[in-house]
Amino acid sequence: MEQNLDPRALYSISYGLYIIGTEWEGALNGQIANTAMQLSSSPVSVSVCLHKDNLTTELMRKSRKFSVSVLAEDVDMPFIGIFGFRSGRDHDKYAKVPYEMGSLGLPLVTKHVVADLEAQVTEIVDVSTHELFIGTVKSARTLTSATPLTYAAYHTLKKGKSPANAPTVIFNSIK
Amino acid sequence: MEQNLDPRALYSISYGLYIIGTEWEGALNGQIANTAMQLSSSPVSVSVCLHKDNLTTELMRKSRKFSVSVLAEDVDMPFIGIFGFRSGRDHDKYAKVPYEMGSLGLPLVTKHVVADLEAQVTEIVDVSTHELFIGTVKSARTLTSATPLTYAAYHTLKKGKSPANAPTVIFNSIK
Repeated sequence: MEQNLDPRALYSISYGLYIIGTEWEGALNGQIANTAMQLSSSPVSVSVCLHKDNLTTELMRKSRKFSVSVLAEDVDMPFIGIFGFRSGRDHDKYAKVPYEMGSLGLPLVTKHVVADLEAQVTEIVDVSTHELFIGTVKSARTLTSATPLTYAAYHTLKKGKSPANAPTVIFNSIK
Repeated sequence: MEQNLDPRALYSISYGLYIIGTEWEGALNGQIANTAMQLSSSPVSVSVCLHKDNLTTELMRKSRKFSVSVLAEDVDMPFIGIFGFRSGRDHDKYAKVPYEMGSLGLPLVTKHVVADLEAQVTEIVDVSTHELFIGTVKSARTLTSATPLTYAAYHTLKKGKSPANAPTVIFNSIK
């Protein structure tokens, strides 16, 4: 990293924490990400940014659809660990959690989740090590009135660590 | 909005609050936005999403550079109002706040700000009513150890309102 880039400055950007899920030819996979954002309201569109090496990214390139499940503040680290810190190439992640299939045929986790949405991909933008998926939201629902988990709360309260492929991982050492 | 889109679901996505600034041929302008995000760490890149009608957006298309100032939790509504709820076409916003020029020649507000960064635009993505600016971070620094303002805290604590051109404005009526 360049000397005039203070990593703490990048850490001051606020995020939530999400399970990004997809389905391709019957295969389900999902991963933890902090990079979900609404981009426009007419139509309602969102983006998520995932590392190119991840299985979820690979499947989303083919299926061109993804779900976003907003994690609640009461989620525990073992639950997060089902979707983070391990690859769907070696683990059937959805076998370990309660979920249902949404109207776009996408997996929607029903535990520790405040709200979810399903999006159809309209554009994929190459961002060096990551890919930014932009999608039109086709369904969105609220599951509970719990408080959404923030990325800051995840770090300070859960003493969690970013997985190796998170955009912010380069800064982990100073946290 | 489609009937199967519950607006509260979109509201559960977490954001911070930022001043996005730019400079073009000596003209400075900036605006409030919640849509800043880190996309990759090698190189460090970020994105911001702004309404096409805004003056800041117009200037950023030409200058292809922008600054992000992360607002602190202690910011007050009159200060936010200098950069939000009004257009730089009618107001010289930077005349009303302390700021300095960064290494990319971008205005960096020095009050109520936790950290700031400057980015060179590498790509502009059309997202219906908005444009997503992706940029490589060229400078990043921390100003104070204050807590960053979250968008949730802005809404609940400040009783603030989204300006008409925010991505989330369609949902304001339920807040």
